[in-house]
Amino acid sequence: MADSKPLRTLDGDPVAVEALLRDVFGIVVDEAILKGTSASEKVCEWKEPEELKQLLDLELQSQGESREQILERCRAVIHYSVKTGHPRFFNQLFSGLDPHALAGRIITESLNTSQYTYEIAPVFVLMEEEVLKKLRALVGWNSGDGVFCPGGSISNMYAMNLARFQRYPDCKQRGLRALPPLALFTSKECHYSITKGAAFLGLGTDSVRVVKADERGRMIPEDLERQIILAEAEGSVPFLVSATSGTTVLGAFDPLDAIADVCQRHGLWFHVDAAWGGSVLLSRTHRHLLDGIQRADSVAWNPHKLLAAGLQCSALLLRDTSNLLKRCHGSQASYLFQQDKFYDVALDTGDKVVQCGRRVDCLKLWLMWKAQGGQGLERRIDQAFALTRYLVEEIKKREGFELVMEVAPVLKERMVKKGTMMIGYQPHGTRANFFRMVVANPILAQADIDFLLGELELLGQDL
Amino acid sequence: MADSKPLRTLDGDPVAVEALLRDVFGIVVDEAILKGTSASEKVCEWKEPEELKQLLDLELQSQGESREQILERCRAVIHYSVKTGHPRFFNQLFSGLDPHALAGRIITESLNTSQYTYEIAPVFVLMEEEVLKKLRALVGWNSGDGVFCPGGSISNMYAMNLARFQRYPDCKQRGLRALPPLALFTSKECHYSITKGAAFLGLGTDSVRVVKADERGRMIPEDLERQIILAEAEGSVPFLVSATSGTTVLGAFDPLDAIADVCQRHGLWFHVDAAWGGSVLLSRTHRHLLDGIQRADSVAWNPHKLLAAGLQCSALLLRDTSNLLKRCHGSQASYLFQQDKFYDVALDTGDKVVQCGRRVDCLKLWLMWKAQGGQGLERRIDQAFALTRYLVEEIKKREGFELVMEVAPVLKERMVKKGTMMIGYQPHGTRANFFRMVVANPILAQADIDFLLGELELLGQDL
Repeated sequence: MADSKPLRTLDGDPVAVEALLRDVFGIVVDEAILKGTSASEKVCEWKEPEELKQLLDLELQSQGESREQILERCRAVIHYSVKTGHPRFFNQLFSGLDPHALAGRIITESLNTSQYTYEIAPVFVLMEEEVLKKLRALVGWNSGDGVFCPGGSISNMYAMNLARFQRYPDCKQRGLRALPPLALFTSKECHYSITKGAAFLGLGTDSVRVVKADERGRMIPEDLERQIILAEAEGSVPFLVSATSGTTVLGAFDPLDAIADVCQRHGLWFHVDAAWGGSVLLSRTHRHLLDGIQRADSVAWNPHKLLAAGLQCSALLLRDTSNLLKRCHGSQASYLFQQDKFYDVALDTGDKVVQCGRRVDCLKLWLMWKAQGGQGLERRIDQAFALTRYLVEEIKKREGFELVMEVAPVLKERMVKKGTMMIGYQPHGTRANFFRMVVANPILAQADIDFLLGELELLGQDL
Repeated sequence: MADSKPLRTLDGDPVAVEALLRDVFGIVVDEAILKGTSASEKVCEWKEPEELKQLLDLELQSQGESREQILERCRAVIHYSVKTGHPRFFNQLFSGLDPHALAGRIITESLNTSQYTYEIAPVFVLMEEEVLKKLRALVGWNSGDGVFCPGGSISNMYAMNLARFQRYPDCKQRGLRALPPLALFTSKECHYSITKGAAFLGLGTDSVRVVKADERGRMIPEDLERQIILAEAEGSVPFLVSATSGTTVLGAFDPLDAIADVCQRHGLWFHVDAAWGGSVLLSRTHRHLLDGIQRADSVAWNPHKLLAAGLQCSALLLRDTSNLLKRCHGSQASYLFQQDKFYDVALDTGDKVVQCGRRVDCLKLWLMWKAQGGQGLERRIDQAFALTRYLVEEIKKREGFELVMEVAPVLKERMVKKGTMMIGYQPHGTRANFFRMVVANPILAQADIDFLLGELELLGQDL
């Protein structure tokens, strides 16, 4: 290994590479991280699409550009992007910018590897196993399996595919035509990925039976049982129930224990979509909301949401210890999963998934957890609940906030164009458009909640 | 927006946040980027799994750790990880660390947004559109559609799902049971994601009909036509052909024009899995290898492979202009894709995909392209071909290299434990295990090829 060699991607100039990256990093720290999380800066710099296209000069040319031009482009990209770590960004179920998680993500990018074999991802194969073990322990399992997926929607699909494979292993080879018509059950408040998944997996959206929810958005177990019996009477074979811990719009937690009872009686796979609410398991005070989750067969949990680990960090957890993941998804590609390797090939986890290359999603969560400790993460969850309670109390005190009427789209347009904050809105059942407040960002304080309420009043004072 | 506020995730100390990130970045530059791409450093620091577990101290505790401990952890993670940007890393179809792409990836992580709406990803919605347009133009289309997927396997699944939906729109709602048995066609050299995808989508692996390849690994169009006729005779409905541009093991390019003729005669969806070979379209000298690709209905192309854009950067490109993606995958979730927004909701591309949250994968490619220009990227491709030719010539000159015998696993173990280089091996047909040389890293030079050959001789001199 004698002949040392410079990095030649920038005209053979490693000094230039280092200088470029240091400059970019300086821009990132100043513009995206410090300004991007400061309440005195705008959440977004709204531009109409046509104007933004002009400002960004997006077209790709055949000539390359100078270092100065590239740095200017980096600044522009950050300037016109929405600051999702900003304390007034309430628009999505993710929010906040944890510095340790970000450190883990930058290291992940610089190492640029794929999670499929111990050979090329030794650290991350072991780390993923450890992180999944920790998440399973919080669910209540001391054994099991799991994998990080590219988002909760795909985790939910995995659960469906595993459930049907477990019941009908033939399905992998012979397909759904060899099976009776299948039915799965979820509440009307479930995430839309359940129906998307049913279509993608060839089950069809008709296979999704919609169970009633109560006024708070929780699945009604008695209606679940009625639906199961009805589906059977209609000639379908029920195979899976997907409960939700933390619904998308109302934040409801389905009654898992009662649902587990129903699943047990009917022999159905019990999946819990805890993409949003799973992180509540870290709070000794609030984890009772998920009582019964330990009876699930599979759990989808996205630490990129309430824990601010960064997109994407989506775990699918399984109670299974029979290597179901690998039996269901494996194809033993001989160029990647050679069986004559010089180490234990059980560490080559790539054949558990339907992807081939798979990003490393464990490091950001692991590093944040090491830095914060379980206790630090627990405090975040408890703080989010405390601030939510504060918000509710304050709303009760203010006139005009009870009234849900058609002002949300107007207020949204005004807040985005002003750039002061972002909140999502939607209709629900017979209710008109209303704002969905997401309290997730770890840097949120009461002052931010006060600002939010005042700003809403200000934006809507003429309505 | 008066009350400025510090970032409080590190005990209310923005100075500490900045200092932490600067320290981490310093470690990344020194250890992962400069050392990680230097030929005088090891490619990997091999440890047995049990020893590595001890060294990394992976367990997650309830107490958090100090800044010094965290920085030490960052160093250890990098130290024991494989350096995929190293000039002697030939093990995978990705390799190399482009500094501009890395800059784009660091910015992506710091902005932490999801690609689904113009509202929260204004820059990236427009940028993705522009990048996809450029890739489509290289395919030969001046209109069409597309999306970045989490890897080529999922791009291939999308193609299958779109093809069956286009032919049987009923499938989305009613599922595969409502359809006749379907058949798709690909060569025995195809990537394993085709069979994985067929299983996941409920078609079953039996639906994949394997077409013969010639001695170089190219699909034989005459056998394709035979297989189609045979499948029809057996009562199946052919619906898709997946050709490969750049097969995984042999690097073969299927004859696309001849395959397109067959697809046209039989009215089949023509998909090209160009995950590996798509980037050759940038080279005016070599793009003839993909002649006929403009006749495809869909193309999967991973710029994270031959262009070193960084994992993951996987484009699915479509010739379709009828909004097939959205019709096939859309579910009109009312909390995300509100139709009463104040801007053109056609920009909300999230309903084109089966994911909900979706990482931004366009910036790294866009920024690298802006910096290198199409010409710079073309030079990279041409250089990879030139070095491959050099490798072949040099092998012919050396004794012992023609002989393919069972030494690959032994040599592999020796090179990994020594840490000098990494190359993948596999058997193929009647051939025993052989090394698959991947020439992709933009910093590769003739000296690296010479080193490789010398090192292989050295490692195997006693065999």
